[in-house]
Amino acid sequence: MSWQYLAEGPSLTGGDRGIVVVVAVIALAALAVGYVLLKEVLAAGQGTSKMQDIAKAVQEGAGAYLKRQRNTLLIFGAIVFVVLFFLPAEGWGERIGRSIFFVFGAVFSFGIGWLGMWLATQANLRVAAASREQGGREIAMRVAFRTGGVVGMATVGLGLFGAAIVVLVYAGGAPKVLEGFGFGAALIAMFMRVGGGIFTKAADVGADLVGKVEQNIPEDDPRNAATIADNVGDNVGDCAGMAADLFESYAVTLVAALILGSTAFGAQGLIFPLIVPALGVITAVIGVYITRAKTGESGLAAINRSFYISALISAVLCTAAAFIFLPGSFADLSGAAEPDISGSPAIIAAVAVLIGIVLAVVILLLTGYFTGTEYKPVKDVGKSSLTGAATVILSGISVGFESAVYTALVIGASVYGAFLLSGSLFVALFAVALAGCGLLTTVGVIVAMDTFGPVSDNAQGIAEMSGDVEGEGAAILTDLDAVGNTTKAITKGIAIATAVLAATALFGSYLNAITDALSEAASTLNLMDFIVFSPKVLVGIAIGASVVFMFSGLAVNAVSRAAGAVVFEVRRQFHDNPGIMDGTVRPQYGRVVDICTRDSLRELATPGLMAVLAPIAVGFGLGVGPLAGYLAGAIATGTLMAVFLANSGGAWDNAKKLVEDGNHGGKGSDAHEATIIGDTVGDPFKDTAGPAINPLIKVMNLVSLLIAPAIVTLTVGDSASTGARVAIAVVAALLVAAAIFLSKRRGTAIADNPADQGTNTPVTNGAS
Amino acid sequence: MSWQYLAEGPSLTGGDRGIVVVVAVIALAALAVGYVLLKEVLAAGQGTSKMQDIAKAVQEGAGAYLKRQRNTLLIFGAIVFVVLFFLPAEGWGERIGRSIFFVFGAVFSFGIGWLGMWLATQANLRVAAASREQGGREIAMRVAFRTGGVVGMATVGLGLFGAAIVVLVYAGGAPKVLEGFGFGAALIAMFMRVGGGIFTKAADVGADLVGKVEQNIPEDDPRNAATIADNVGDNVGDCAGMAADLFESYAVTLVAALILGSTAFGAQGLIFPLIVPALGVITAVIGVYITRAKTGESGLAAINRSFYISALISAVLCTAAAFIFLPGSFADLSGAAEPDISGSPAIIAAVAVLIGIVLAVVILLLTGYFTGTEYKPVKDVGKSSLTGAATVILSGISVGFESAVYTALVIGASVYGAFLLSGSLFVALFAVALAGCGLLTTVGVIVAMDTFGPVSDNAQGIAEMSGDVEGEGAAILTDLDAVGNTTKAITKGIAIATAVLAATALFGSYLNAITDALSEAASTLNLMDFIVFSPKVLVGIAIGASVVFMFSGLAVNAVSRAAGAVVFEVRRQFHDNPGIMDGTVRPQYGRVVDICTRDSLRELATPGLMAVLAPIAVGFGLGVGPLAGYLAGAIATGTLMAVFLANSGGAWDNAKKLVEDGNHGGKGSDAHEATIIGDTVGDPFKDTAGPAINPLIKVMNLVSLLIAPAIVTLTVGDSASTGARVAIAVVAALLVAAAIFLSKRRGTAIADNPADQGTNTPVTNGAS
Repeated sequence: MSWQYLAEGPSLTGGDRGIVVVVAVIALAALAVGYVLLKEVLAAGQGTSKMQDIAKAVQEGAGAYLKRQRNTLLIFGAIVFVVLFFLPAEGWGERIGRSIFFVFGAVFSFGIGWLGMWLATQANLRVAAASREQGGREIAMRVAFRTGGVVGMATVGLGLFGAAIVVLVYAGGAPKVLEGFGFGAALIAMFMRVGGGIFTKAADVGADLVGKVEQNIPEDDPRNAATIADNVGDNVGDCAGMAADLFESYAVTLVAALILGSTAFGAQGLIFPLIVPALGVITAVIGVYITRAKTGESGLAAINRSFYISALISAVLCTAAAFIFLPGSFADLSGAAEPDISGSPAIIAAVAVLIGIVLAVVILLLTGYFTGTEYKPVKDVGKSSLTGAATVILSGISVGFESAVYTALVIGASVYGAFLLSGSLFVALFAVALAGCGLLTTVGVIVAMDTFGPVSDNAQGIAEMSGDVEGEGAAILTDLDAVGNTTKAITKGIAIATAVLAATALFGSYLNAITDALSEAASTLNLMDFIVFSPKVLVGIAIGASVVFMFSGLAVNAVSRAAGAVVFEVRRQFHDNPGIMDGTVRPQYGRVVDICTRDSLRELATPGLMAVLAPIAVGFGLGVGPLAGYLAGAIATGTLMAVFLANSGGAWDNAKKLVEDGNHGGKGSDAHEATIIGDTVGDPFKDTAGPAINPLIKVMNLVSLLIAPAIVTLTVGDSASTGARVAIAVVAALLVAAAIFLSKRRGTAIADNPADQGTNTPVTNGAS
Repeated sequence: MSWQYLAEGPSLTGGDRGIVVVVAVIALAALAVGYVLLKEVLAAGQGTSKMQDIAKAVQEGAGAYLKRQRNTLLIFGAIVFVVLFFLPAEGWGERIGRSIFFVFGAVFSFGIGWLGMWLATQANLRVAAASREQGGREIAMRVAFRTGGVVGMATVGLGLFGAAIVVLVYAGGAPKVLEGFGFGAALIAMFMRVGGGIFTKAADVGADLVGKVEQNIPEDDPRNAATIADNVGDNVGDCAGMAADLFESYAVTLVAALILGSTAFGAQGLIFPLIVPALGVITAVIGVYITRAKTGESGLAAINRSFYISALISAVLCTAAAFIFLPGSFADLSGAAEPDISGSPAIIAAVAVLIGIVLAVVILLLTGYFTGTEYKPVKDVGKSSLTGAATVILSGISVGFESAVYTALVIGASVYGAFLLSGSLFVALFAVALAGCGLLTTVGVIVAMDTFGPVSDNAQGIAEMSGDVEGEGAAILTDLDAVGNTTKAITKGIAIATAVLAATALFGSYLNAITDALSEAASTLNLMDFIVFSPKVLVGIAIGASVVFMFSGLAVNAVSRAAGAVVFEVRRQFHDNPGIMDGTVRPQYGRVVDICTRDSLRELATPGLMAVLAPIAVGFGLGVGPLAGYLAGAIATGTLMAVFLANSGGAWDNAKKLVEDGNHGGKGSDAHEATIIGDTVGDPFKDTAGPAINPLIKVMNLVSLLIAPAIVTLTVGDSASTGARVAIAVVAALLVAAAIFLSKRRGTAIADNPADQGTNTPVTNGAS
């Protein structure tokens, strides 16, 4: 393994610029296609006025939440913007560019999330309405999937456009600026993921605990004061959160590829990572338009088919592009006549991209196997309901552990495979990043698949609450909802895979940044002195793994607390207004939405601060070697934990569906109750803690990348700089500790709320 | 950080030999004290004949299990013995010594486990009998604690004696031989832990599911055919398994310290790690004899007091020993005039040992806080029972995650603190190992505390089943049982801390072994070429973390399967013999014991094989760098997972006790049922999967240490050796995959067993 890397800061030739301009145009074309799809979705019928009323309430709740979240994030973003400005950079151009593109990344990320949510709240009504029409099944499915298509096109369009502009303007200086872009996207996505995840599950768990468990009324029953909040939650969590998250995955993977590309391949390394996703745009458009269920075919089969077709087209196009745009030997690479790197750039790039595409397909199959109702794992969990809730929980946890291991091993094999493609470290790392780009070519369809889930879920909610959809229409919506459950699980698997590939590539950029900083400080030390695998690094790994556990624990706890507040508010309303249960009085839906909004925004602070500050504490406190260990520990444990949480939750959810479909005693049986307990445990697993680990990993990697030069400078400096280093670490560590302490102070609200059911006193959350 | 290390293979002076002989004599004295305690325990009264009958059934069941386990392990041990013989070593002396002491380690480990179990089955009867006497509380407690004392003395006596003999006979060649000793101890302990853990929880969960949940009869009701198996399980799991495990912790930590000691401190490094635990023997004797509850004082307070006192005495004695036996500068160290190491060996050693002792105290406090009924975490879990089982599970998982993080950070801080004591890598690693030795000085009391748990638990079982203990006596036993729950949780925390310290030190020995092998192969490469932190290492970390998840999943699954078989057998007996429920017919206890024995021995194969073979696959397949990553990933994730599983389980167990003590509705309420579900989920967490991770980590470290020279030889060799390397890796990986596949084939037995309750057909387990 050679640690040599090629000259930095390549400049682009006229031809290169031309290609980047074409990429930017393709990105804009994606946005145009998205606009066309948007018009089509909005043109669909809107159903009865009762349905519209309900949809309006959901829209208002979701809008109010995002508005308040925007205000919270503005403050946080402003602080980061200022801090970012003081971090080391080469010259003012890079420094200003990095901060400006941080803002772009953040705004795009928020914008995509907002678009996803706004459109979903429009589309759910239209899907519900479509189900009532003649041939409703196909219309409903088309509206739902094209809604996802709009978000998918926006994701790839904005991500690719942003990256192309940075490359056009900054060329060789692009990497630092791209760090800002990726960081902005990842940071905002993490907050939207965590906040939305807490909102949606607090409302969902709260609604279920009072509705299904205590009062024995069905899901989405309009008498339950938490139903509107539950539907709002689907939109702010599964739509806004997931859309921002996938945009961030897209942007960060692209950023990682571009950063490493210029190091490994010179100017060509800035071009090729843009070409691959540009081809992905084309295949995504094809994928969205060909998704159409044949008669008698399940919706899932149709969606899977278009996924496979678009993956295949991507593979062919990308392989061709590699051989067209990349030379056959490193000697031919412009500005990179380093002779000690062997192999063919074209072959390396082609194989790397193919690895990524194959990985996407394998993850789809694996996740489908472990969370689908037709396979053994979920069937086993379903059967275990015969011996009670405890065995349901245990078997679900086993399924989660096991599927996490297989998924992690498959991702690990891809990383290793890509990494073996070259003997040069930075070329090998670039190959890992290119595998990520290969995975990205499927993101357009993936986003469409994912948005499909909450839209169908909400459509069913609106149908149920309005009572205006019956018979055939209701059956169509139930079907679509089940399809949505599976596509949501698959998206999570793909999202974590992109996270690992991007993070591994960023990990490489991190090594790169240390080398640069050392040469700039004219230090006699080199990279090897810092990143040797000593037991100090082992401590770093343990801390990195710990942060994942802590983050998961905090997220689960936050849902428990917020759900507790919902439970007590709904109980209070039932108690104060007996008319609600008779259906004569309308519950105060808005109060529950307010509680969820307030609590989720308050709860996201602690995990968010920890994600940003923990790497600062470790890096400045223990050094860049332990920080490398920290990142590695977080990536490894984060992958396992994310998949464990997502798949356990998915398996419990579908095991419940199995029982509800009439197995093991069916609805109302003891087995059903056992699976409801499993599903409730799985809710915060799969929709709050699990998916938030994905942006968490990347935020921590990007923070480390941004601070690495500063740490190196202070490490090789004099004793005064040691003092500064330790001071920064201590302040960061204390802030994390304080945030955790304050969140503990709020206690476990479900427990801390007044225990008497239906109390007359106003709702007080544990914290107030 | 200097990577220099001192000359290897020091020889002992006459004075040194004298000290080692004294240590050996102290070790024998510990065994003698154990014998005196044993006589005392056996001399206690044995209660009514009904009680004796029950105890006899338990004794027979436990004995039969261990006999069959011994036969299984004999075959496995013989295979390992042969393979071990072919691994590289310097000369025949080392090779033969390593294999012989492998056998000693294995036999000692099994012997301690057998002793712990045999004695516990004698003592439980006597504790139950004592509770009926005048002043029964103190007598019962003394018998229970001194039973633990016997096992504690045997653990430290045999461990120390074995190590001292190796040092006396092999001096400079001791490290390789000690690897064999430690490996034998760890391997057998892991199997006993896993097998016993599956047995005890299969019986416990099975008994609870049919007894408490379905038939609504109390725990330990003699009508339940699984009760004897449940009591047998306490002995083979909590006594035999834990005793072997703690012996292994003791032996392996000592081994790690001695291996690093000769590298870091020369001959003194072989002496001092023996002196510290020898002092620990003295303080353990004091600790066991001073444990006596004052009037009105809780048993736990008395036990904690003797722990603190013995820790304090250890601290004083060890500090004194450091200054008496070690010189003030490295120049004065015999055979180690390396001038580039600064600092005082005496101070380094004294501080390192103190860090270990303080760590033991902090873990005791932390574990007590997170699992004790009087603190907030368990109280919160208890309160969450008001909103049902799902919130109990979620809050317990939060408590587990969080406490795991704090525990991992405290252990990490200790490792880091010890590591900072010297700028020389191997001296720093030795300091980590010495911290482990410091922790070990408390092991005598810890083993006594731990054995206390199952003995009291069983005493209550015998009392309940015989019906011969009433009133005051029954209250005494309930009290002692609750104390036992807490001491068991604390022991697990301490055990995992010793595992991390020993594993970190072994990790250092692993680096040492690579350096040695390179110099022997006269390779131009050096350590740095292998263990640089590249993304290949990151893949290793991910695989290491994966193995921990897989192992936990397999263990939980094994319990589910075996418990399913128990459930169906007990149901069958109730159905076939209605007289059992009337109390007129005696259930066939033996059949359930047989099922547990058969299933647990069958189930331990897969996790056991994985622990041994996975490092071989990674090491030979990916290289020593990724294997280092693998170990680090396994240590970091293993620590978190072990504490998470242990403390979640402990918190659920005690939350149930809280409700049973009359909180939140008390026994029979919905809240009680919710906490029973939590406790059942926690059973395999805390008593099967969690504690088995401790020996798992060490087995994997020792396997890596043993194979490291072979990997290096094949790595620096020609292409033929590359073929051999890959072939070994592929075979190992295929064997693991086959084992997992076969265990999957057995399915989730709870689910796969016939679902109709009380079927007439003979019991068939999913596998048969």
